[in-house]
Amino acid sequence: MRQPTPRRSSKAGLPPGTPVHIGRRQSEQAKITILDYDEAGVREQALESLDQCVSLRGVPGVTWVSVVGLHDIELLERLGECFRLHPLVLEDIANTDQRPKLEDYDGYLFIVAKALDGNARDAQVDAEQVCLVLGPNFVISFEELESDLFGSVRERIRAGRGHIRNAGADYLAYSLLDALVDRYFVTLEVLGEKIENFEEELVTNPTVGTLRIVHRLKSEMIVLRKSVWPLREVIAGLSRAESSLINQATVIYLRDVYDHTIEVIDTMETYREMVSGMLDIYLSSISNRMNEIMKVLTIIATIFIPLTFITGIFGMNFARMPGLRWEWGYFATLGAMFLVGVGMLLYFRKRKWL
Amino acid sequence: MRQPTPRRSSKAGLPPGTPVHIGRRQSEQAKITILDYDEAGVREQALESLDQCVSLRGVPGVTWVSVVGLHDIELLERLGECFRLHPLVLEDIANTDQRPKLEDYDGYLFIVAKALDGNARDAQVDAEQVCLVLGPNFVISFEELESDLFGSVRERIRAGRGHIRNAGADYLAYSLLDALVDRYFVTLEVLGEKIENFEEELVTNPTVGTLRIVHRLKSEMIVLRKSVWPLREVIAGLSRAESSLINQATVIYLRDVYDHTIEVIDTMETYREMVSGMLDIYLSSISNRMNEIMKVLTIIATIFIPLTFITGIFGMNFARMPGLRWEWGYFATLGAMFLVGVGMLLYFRKRKWL
Amino acid sequence: MRQPTPRRSSKAGLPPGTPVHIGRRQSEQAKITILDYDEAGVREQALESLDQCVSLRGVPGVTWVSVVGLHDIELLERLGECFRLHPLVLEDIANTDQRPKLEDYDGYLFIVAKALDGNARDAQVDAEQVCLVLGPNFVISFEELESDLFGSVRERIRAGRGHIRNAGADYLAYSLLDALVDRYFVTLEVLGEKIENFEEELVTNPTVGTLRIVHRLKSEMIVLRKSVWPLREVIAGLSRAESSLINQATVIYLRDVYDHTIEVIDTMETYREMVSGMLDIYLSSISNRMNEIMKVLTIIATIFIPLTFITGIFGMNFARMPGLRWEWGYFATLGAMFLVGVGMLLYFRKRKWL
Amino acid sequence: MRQPTPRRSSKAGLPPGTPVHIGRRQSEQAKITILDYDEAGVREQALESLDQCVSLRGVPGVTWVSVVGLHDIELLERLGECFRLHPLVLEDIANTDQRPKLEDYDGYLFIVAKALDGNARDAQVDAEQVCLVLGPNFVISFEELESDLFGSVRERIRAGRGHIRNAGADYLAYSLLDALVDRYFVTLEVLGEKIENFEEELVTNPTVGTLRIVHRLKSEMIVLRKSVWPLREVIAGLSRAESSLINQATVIYLRDVYDHTIEVIDTMETYREMVSGMLDIYLSSISNRMNEIMKVLTIIATIFIPLTFITGIFGMNFARMPGLRWEWGYFATLGAMFLVGVGMLLYFRKRKWL
Amino acid sequence: MRQPTPRRSSKAGLPPGTPVHIGRRQSEQAKITILDYDEAGVREQALESLDQCVSLRGVPGVTWVSVVGLHDIELLERLGECFRLHPLVLEDIANTDQRPKLEDYDGYLFIVAKALDGNARDAQVDAEQVCLVLGPNFVISFEELESDLFGSVRERIRAGRGHIRNAGADYLAYSLLDALVDRYFVTLEVLGEKIENFEEELVTNPTVGTLRIVHRLKSEMIVLRKSVWPLREVIAGLSRAESSLINQATVIYLRDVYDHTIEVIDTMETYREMVSGMLDIYLSSISNRMNEIMKVLTIIATIFIPLTFITGIFGMNFARMPGLRWEWGYFATLGAMFLVGVGMLLYFRKRKWL
Repeated sequence: MRQPTPRRSSKAGLPPGTPVHIGRRQSEQAKITILDYDEAGVREQALESLDQCVSLRGVPGVTWVSVVGLHDIELLERLGECFRLHPLVLEDIANTDQRPKLEDYDGYLFIVAKALDGNARDAQVDAEQVCLVLGPNFVISFEELESDLFGSVRERIRAGRGHIRNAGADYLAYSLLDALVDRYFVTLEVLGEKIENFEEELVTNPTVGTLRIVHRLKSEMIVLRKSVWPLREVIAGLSRAESSLINQATVIYLRDVYDHTIEVIDTMETYREMVSGMLDIYLSSISNRMNEIMKVLTIIATIFIPLTFITGIFGMNFARMPGLRWEWGYFATLGAMFLVGVGMLLYFRKRKWL
Repeated sequence: MRQPTPRRSSKAGLPPGTPVHIGRRQSEQAKITILDYDEAGVREQALESLDQCVSLRGVPGVTWVSVVGLHDIELLERLGECFRLHPLVLEDIANTDQRPKLEDYDGYLFIVAKALDGNARDAQVDAEQVCLVLGPNFVISFEELESDLFGSVRERIRAGRGHIRNAGADYLAYSLLDALVDRYFVTLEVLGEKIENFEEELVTNPTVGTLRIVHRLKSEMIVLRKSVWPLREVIAGLSRAESSLINQATVIYLRDVYDHTIEVIDTMETYREMVSGMLDIYLSSISNRMNEIMKVLTIIATIFIPLTFITGIFGMNFARMPGLRWEWGYFATLGAMFLVGVGMLLYFRKRKWL
Repeated sequence: MRQPTPRRSSKAGLPPGTPVHIGRRQSEQAKITILDYDEAGVREQALESLDQCVSLRGVPGVTWVSVVGLHDIELLERLGECFRLHPLVLEDIANTDQRPKLEDYDGYLFIVAKALDGNARDAQVDAEQVCLVLGPNFVISFEELESDLFGSVRERIRAGRGHIRNAGADYLAYSLLDALVDRYFVTLEVLGEKIENFEEELVTNPTVGTLRIVHRLKSEMIVLRKSVWPLREVIAGLSRAESSLINQATVIYLRDVYDHTIEVIDTMETYREMVSGMLDIYLSSISNRMNEIMKVLTIIATIFIPLTFITGIFGMNFARMPGLRWEWGYFATLGAMFLVGVGMLLYFRKRKWL
Repeated sequence: MRQPTPRRSSKAGLPPGTPVHIGRRQSEQAKITILDYDEAGVREQALESLDQCVSLRGVPGVTWVSVVGLHDIELLERLGECFRLHPLVLEDIANTDQRPKLEDYDGYLFIVAKALDGNARDAQVDAEQVCLVLGPNFVISFEELESDLFGSVRERIRAGRGHIRNAGADYLAYSLLDALVDRYFVTLEVLGEKIENFEEELVTNPTVGTLRIVHRLKSEMIVLRKSVWPLREVIAGLSRAESSLINQATVIYLRDVYDHTIEVIDTMETYREMVSGMLDIYLSSISNRMNEIMKVLTIIATIFIPLTFITGIFGMNFARMPGLRWEWGYFATLGAMFLVGVGMLLYFRKRKWL
Repeated sequence: MRQPTPRRSSKAGLPPGTPVHIGRRQSEQAKITILDYDEAGVREQALESLDQCVSLRGVPGVTWVSVVGLHDIELLERLGECFRLHPLVLEDIANTDQRPKLEDYDGYLFIVAKALDGNARDAQVDAEQVCLVLGPNFVISFEELESDLFGSVRERIRAGRGHIRNAGADYLAYSLLDALVDRYFVTLEVLGEKIENFEEELVTNPTVGTLRIVHRLKSEMIVLRKSVWPLREVIAGLSRAESSLINQATVIYLRDVYDHTIEVIDTMETYREMVSGMLDIYLSSISNRMNEIMKVLTIIATIFIPLTFITGIFGMNFARMPGLRWEWGYFATLGAMFLVGVGMLLYFRKRKWL
């Protein structure tokens, strides 16, 4: 149900800047794809190893280096040398247990974000780490597992749709972040449907498992919140454009993604309130039902206890009990008991206990 | 009861700045009304199509272009070209799932706000998106459905009441926002009445459905809050008058609308506290009533159980039971049982259990 | 119990700056009293109408124009013209549903505050709106109903006590605010007494009505809080002395009133926590008492049920039941039942259930 | 249990700056002690009246004027004249219902603080007001009642321990505040012990009075909090050293007292959380115990009700009831009832209800 | 369970700057280890006494003086003289009840932090105080008890791993803080496992002791929070690099530790929410179980009470009771009772009470 804390403790005692892969999933082999593009055209190439460092840099236009798979520490280090990344950056990339953040290094920006996998409907909300390095004319993206997260951006570059081919590396970084944030809406919709269906179920058939589902929804929202709130700061930091790597023209677009994250947060907070309210409804309807049962049962018992007392009276063995010998005594007693029972029922109904 | 999240996910993967209509309601055809006015007079005209772009601009005085219906993407785009609106602005106008916000573009201000429909008494509080574009001498307003929201402003322009005809486009934008905020008070009054009536009902006749009504009131307040809190920031931003589009003279008026939104927020928060308090009263009175029932019923049972025990004693079949043969034994036993019953009643009353 | 929202909706659609009286109480006729004073002496005069505008201004010394009754819109407008007040100021004066605020207009300060009527002990805490206009050498005060709120200040001016006659209009405004804030302490003391008495009652005799009283206390505090918190900002704004209308010498006094409002807020918050704590005590003692009852009753029933079972055994009609014919069987059975009963009582006592 | 609001209302209507003694305790006579000291030596003198104003000032070195007893308004006023204190300062000194604060007057600083009396173990936490006036070469301290609060400082001056005799008046003021804050730790320790003992009692023997003790602890913490939080701001204000009366060398010491107040606040907040947690434990253990009782009692009743039903069957008077005449019928029935009882017990145990 | 407040009160009355050891544990003798290192090599030496002050300073390269054991006040004072530490610094070192803080003294920085001992799995989370003094070319570390907290750093210096030997004293201080923060992750993992295991237990077997464990977890988090939150400010203060003692190159590393503390805080807050949620689940499942029991028992009683009433009827001793003499009366009655019982069971099942 819950993501266990990855074994951060395995790093205690190592010198800072030592990249250690802390993650849950390992693709079979790290894969590097390079996409060079400018207004004129697009060049794609997939690398297996990293001997050709020269091939990565010095190309005119914008270069997007996409790395999938983080367990190959050596490859990361060679890439780091090639792009002159700080050892701490490499350490953060390999450790997939980072918080979304934006760091301004000399010559490049380092961005950590969380991508949500909102496709699987039954599955849990799960956050995967995505790192971006934005340089003057290149963007490097790091993912742990192959996914179609950035597929639409790649498609747009290939097809030359929108003005992505005319814009710089900062616009590419924006596009990647935008694709990432768009995924949040998908996850939110799935979550919203779950909540709606569950609300229906809560009213028609509250069972013991309900509380656990409510808490599972709550945990999913904690995952969401831990991903989105710091992302908001990251994008706010980018759109303040304090770095020379961000063009003024891109700021308008970054403000737009910023608005989207605010909307995600808003919807999330609304869902949180709804789930809290559902907990109240659940507890109240469970206790209402129990009270309902107890009430009816107690009323039945209460009616028959005085009646049983009456039968007890006429079951006593006194030698002289007037009425016992009376021919209609039995029927009169039955009638009296019937009247007592009906009277109590009427009284209960009058006091609205029934 | 709740507004489902509009299908934002349908936009994932599209290039930014692609307007897609995300909304619930579609008027049959988009309608454009143009109102030119200055001190001297008023010219009105209704357009079906947008070939006459020239007719929209270049007129002396203030021009109010009112667009009703947002599903006609093509028309929006032509309008955008005509007034040189940024593609992201068009995208935000078409997507009626925006958060109220103020954006300062080069040459115009873009305002998103939520209008409340407070007319229907039984209906839910529902927020409709209204967008304003404030240029140097024009205001464009975008609504999804025809409504009488801005009717009074239009009336005032036609009649020349107040000094709206002498003032600039910023005063017109202020007037529209003022009309919009005035609606909030209507909605709040309706909500206030609902709460008051409901409070009465809560005390006289708390039923099972009550909790759901409390939660519906809570959801309506969430809608309200999501509309008003950001609107406050929007108007605060306008009244700081950092844009050259806002005259100093209009700032006093904007501060006034700002005060109104603060009052709306204040009243809303008071209502929230009242609704929370009502939940406490409800839960407490429900449990009080149940306890009341259980107590009385248990007391009845408790009185008759010892009495039944006594009848049991004299129903035993021992050969030698002194008293059974005594002539007044039966009556003495009945009397004793009567005394025991009355004694217990008195004891219960003394301990204030009755 | 609760103040209904005044009909703000009646204003929707009117041009801004149209004063409409929104209030609960109307004195029979608006009354204007003018008090001119300087070190040398005091001149008082009561006006019925406002033809003599000249008589209001241009007098040396400080002029205090006191207006009681706000329903005479025409009079307000003439006064506004006379002192060159902005239409929005007049609108705010007539609408008694304002939030305390401070506004800096050209040439005068406009202050809205709430006065509490703390005299009536049984009555609700009720806030009445008081507006002040502070000009270079005049103060205009607006009240809805005649009250003795400013009586002590008037007395001090007439008698020349303190140095009010040597000071300027800002000191007069300070004195009025000080008198207004002093009233809050009276209200708080009344409220404090109510809470103390109620706490006593809560422990000795918790009844069903208690919860409603707790909620009434809570609502009174909401009224208080809505009046005091913004007042704090108003006085903080005044004591920052950004306006040239406030002398540096008066700032020390304003800081003193500021401290008083902070104390009012402090005491209020303490009361709020006490009332919340009382709710806990109430709920807990109610449920304790109910549990106490249920426990004793259940114990009685539990003792007699096994005893009744024993009588049932000997009430069976088997042909051969040894003991039934034994001469002491009856007494032995009675004794055994007595022992069982006492044994259960002792067991219950040992387990501390009694 | 609770400190009633002192009668602030008695001041309503008086001109500002009129000192009125608002306090709970009156020492028999106000007492003034004067301590002059410099590196060379110490001169002490106790005054009964205040005719010798000259004797108070103009002495080289540092002068500490200690005033105990605030009800002698005349004496306060003469002292005020002598040291040129503002009337509002005198008013605040006489009114012991002030909030801790720091005020920067021309030529002196005015400090209000709350001293805690943490000696009496059983008694309530109680806050007494202490005022300090810090001038260029003098400190005046005002207390309501004689106490040993500043005894250690006086001792240190007399004995010349530490470097207090070499330092200025600001270091004396710091020493007094330090002694005052040190008292808070004593009070916190007493409170901590109370909470610890109480926690023990809560687990072993939760009674009805427990909730009231929890709330008493809560009220004591409210008193503490109202004293400490503003004191923090006071000392932070002093250590910013914006006044020329504070030497840079003293700032390090003031920062140290500041850290102490932060620690007091920290410990206090921890205690608050612990007390809240205790409330949860209490409520839960009370309800656990009650449920425990109800469960066992209900089980007893449930076992005997079916058994009594069986005895009822054989107590019926039908002419033809096979088994009644059977010789072993009685014993067989008893045996069957025994088996039913044991079976139910086993069933309850299996379902873990016992 | 809880750490009692160390006896701060023993210090009340002492002059400021008097070091008094306030701590829980005393190592047998204070131990001083000195580590001099530069790029070229490492010199280690262990001191018993402090006569050789000269040996501590004036060495080229970086000097790390590590002090273990704080009860030897005299030694602390001699060390203080040697490094010209302020008396207040010595006082804070000896008092192990400090809050994490950063103080900028003339010529050195003083850092107080809390180290967590996360090794013992069953034991409580416990915070031990660690002080650092960072000078231009030396770092002094103070611990109360010998531990392996800084073992890895020492190892790294000896082995020359990483670039610690090339960096200055600020990098050493960073390394020590980094080692300290890394420990927090270990503690968090232990805590996370406890919570996970406990959650499992909570669902399968909620017992009475559970609530106490939940509260123990809560207290451990309070200890954690009191250690981490202020540490965050300490490291934020260091990484702002306002002191000339911090090199710009070290700032990147400090920002990294800062990120780690933020992650610790994040995880901690998530755990807090999970523990709160567990409390809800616990209370709800306890009450569910109790209700389950009460329901079944009440149903049993309810079925037999009407049946017993029927047996009572035929146990009455009326002379004329038709049916008693009927040959099949007995069996007919038994059958009727059977039908009534089954009917009630079916009714209960239909209403989903079973």
